[in-house]
Amino acid sequence: MKPIKIGLLGLGTVGTGVVRLVEGHQDDLSNQVGSPISISQILVKDRSKSRNIPIDASKLTEDPWEIVRNPDIDVIVEVMGGIELTKDYILEALERGKHIVTANKDLMALHGREILEKARDKGCDVLYEASVAGGIPIIRTLIEGFSSDRITKIMGIVNGTTNYILTKMSQEGVAYADVLKEAQTLGYAEADPTSDVEGLDAARKMTILSTLGFRTDVALEHVKVKGISAVSQEDIQYAKRLGYEVKLLGIAERQDDLISVSVEPTMVKTSHPIASVNGVFNAVYVHGEAVGETMFYGAGAGELPTATSVVADLVAVVKNMKLGVNGRQSQLSYNVTKLKTDEQIASKFFLLLHVEDRAGVLAQIAQVFSDCEVSIESVMQPSTPNQSSTEIIIITHQASKAAMNNVLKAFESSSAVRKVKSVYRVEG
Amino acid sequence: MKPIKIGLLGLGTVGTGVVRLVEGHQDDLSNQVGSPISISQILVKDRSKSRNIPIDASKLTEDPWEIVRNPDIDVIVEVMGGIELTKDYILEALERGKHIVTANKDLMALHGREILEKARDKGCDVLYEASVAGGIPIIRTLIEGFSSDRITKIMGIVNGTTNYILTKMSQEGVAYADVLKEAQTLGYAEADPTSDVEGLDAARKMTILSTLGFRTDVALEHVKVKGISAVSQEDIQYAKRLGYEVKLLGIAERQDDLISVSVEPTMVKTSHPIASVNGVFNAVYVHGEAVGETMFYGAGAGELPTATSVVADLVAVVKNMKLGVNGRQSQLSYNVTKLKTDEQIASKFFLLLHVEDRAGVLAQIAQVFSDCEVSIESVMQPSTPNQSSTEIIIITHQASKAAMNNVLKAFESSSAVRKVKSVYRVEG
Repeated sequence: MKPIKIGLLGLGTVGTGVVRLVEGHQDDLSNQVGSPISISQILVKDRSKSRNIPIDASKLTEDPWEIVRNPDIDVIVEVMGGIELTKDYILEALERGKHIVTANKDLMALHGREILEKARDKGCDVLYEASVAGGIPIIRTLIEGFSSDRITKIMGIVNGTTNYILTKMSQEGVAYADVLKEAQTLGYAEADPTSDVEGLDAARKMTILSTLGFRTDVALEHVKVKGISAVSQEDIQYAKRLGYEVKLLGIAERQDDLISVSVEPTMVKTSHPIASVNGVFNAVYVHGEAVGETMFYGAGAGELPTATSVVADLVAVVKNMKLGVNGRQSQLSYNVTKLKTDEQIASKFFLLLHVEDRAGVLAQIAQVFSDCEVSIESVMQPSTPNQSSTEIIIITHQASKAAMNNVLKAFESSSAVRKVKSVYRVEG
Repeated sequence: MKPIKIGLLGLGTVGTGVVRLVEGHQDDLSNQVGSPISISQILVKDRSKSRNIPIDASKLTEDPWEIVRNPDIDVIVEVMGGIELTKDYILEALERGKHIVTANKDLMALHGREILEKARDKGCDVLYEASVAGGIPIIRTLIEGFSSDRITKIMGIVNGTTNYILTKMSQEGVAYADVLKEAQTLGYAEADPTSDVEGLDAARKMTILSTLGFRTDVALEHVKVKGISAVSQEDIQYAKRLGYEVKLLGIAERQDDLISVSVEPTMVKTSHPIASVNGVFNAVYVHGEAVGETMFYGAGAGELPTATSVVADLVAVVKNMKLGVNGRQSQLSYNVTKLKTDEQIASKFFLLLHVEDRAGVLAQIAQVFSDCEVSIESVMQPSTPNQSSTEIIIITHQASKAAMNNVLKAFESSSAVRKVKSVYRVEG
């Protein structure tokens, strides 16, 4: 049988994994799709560089256009990363009738709609399972597994770097800066960790998940983002005492036709299944009106886990080719995007306050909450001997973000509160 | 647009959920598939019975053949249960070119191959996501999500009744018989609970999961089954002291081309993600060569969770109808089934022994293990004052089942061991 020919853009970590899987599992793959799959051409930055895997040098090229315009190639597997240039290659490949498998979250978060529309017009597939949560097949789960349900909430630990850092801080009591340095040494964090630790990477993934889950176009600018660089050991220790873990959660919610999406460090009740997702693992918790609570757990990154998703997409594309139905299964959003206002976004909150050490302070603080119509679930006053300022921890009942902002504003001019040390959303 | 017509066999818990979802989510569904979905005829046992949901009485029939032979019906949704008669209806429906969505694990575990072959010959779809782990889309995950990988292990908590019982026994210290009675009152256990508590229900589900995961036909008689009726409070308490939970696990393993499948109460290390799956929840843990560890968690049963999977399958069938590709996506196994012998099945083991209270007993026992080439990881001798017989707990290193059977046989004639109180497989 005529082999299906693949053009591979990128031979970094994931690209190498794709070559390994396609070659190592050739029998299993051709049993499933009915013909051999052959990687015909590979884009690399430097043809002369030595590689971890045996590669026929004649397949390597440094010119992406050579692959994109190669008439023999049926499917482009894009694992090179990048946004604007990469988009050009992909649009050109689609123009020429090639199908796309990509692991590129940045590209899909920013230009997903344009690419999917082009694919539909050209009768091509664009699949991107590997773009979110590496080895966890969460994208096909949202598209197919829950096609019958109305998803109301998606919570994701979708960035392994920050989850590794927070896990270490929680389990070993090490300070943020020290764990970050260690993560960089181990290769779990980039030299410039900003995109991970400030939540941008997670925000891009939440853009993709919420677009699929709510069947509405969510843009990156719709996502409220806060990273973990301000999370202190003190916050984590208080969280643990109260039965919470601090996790960087992507949270997407829908009520009727209103949605909200955020990425923020969150206190998660230890009994919630997502609280025990540790280290570099990822997990996506999905709540549907009918299905209730579900969670999907696995490796979020890494050569072979990510390659598993890429090659599973490749199998799906090739099956569609055999059936002649490419470009007809992808799902464009059909709901209008309406964002919740701060009045409509509600959660519990955790506050750590530095307050004056004198009688009547707690009453004064409670009055502020009451004036702003935020009701308090619990108050804890840890003992701090030999200090004139003392700490108060407050956990609220469900309150709107707007009401909580009013509380914080009132504290600015309150004689009782010296400083609001931290504010967290609370889940679970 | 012409509506797609559904014949629903069964209007019990799941059938009612299917009606609710199809009617409640009609807009979402037709947005996805491009035409309305209409439930045209419903098989019930008693037409005159009153229902929880408004149903047009003219749609009800007590004659299954009327639905199966109705030329207007495109898809049969089978949620009536039963095996031999139900198989006849389904084969007849396939013969007439109707597609099938079923939640029937018993049918698929026993006659899956025959039904799928018939479907392939007739160009029809047979989808059965709801047959295992209710709302968790584990079947499409195994078929599609991990199509690129070689799955080496599947561990499942796939029976909610037994997981509820074991969770209660662990968390509240209640005896097996008392929890079972309570579960029956709450409707979590059947009046005759045999199929659940003796592991048969789980075994049928593991037959389906291992067939898909290993791409080889696994039959029910290949599954070694042991239920939970002999699990004592004592076992659970010792497990907890050593850092384990007792769970009824389905365990399917593959090494090269050899497989083994079992259902048995297992001691699971509390740090393993499946150890904290509690109550009626289900979870399936999947290990793949490339993807590593993954886990899928959710409701295993219930009206709406199960209906979610049924209707998601329905959406897939209707999409295939629109594309004209029914009957071409299902996957028949292509690997030859080779079972591991007891010499090839290996795990750690937990043993609780009643032994003589005299010097030299431990040495004598250790000698038995050594003679049988089973090495010991740890020994615990809980103090039991005022008793002539005393207890010893042993956890072994990895050992073959055959070697462990030799140990147990040697204990029968040992003067040191009064009784082997319990033996568990250990995981995690």
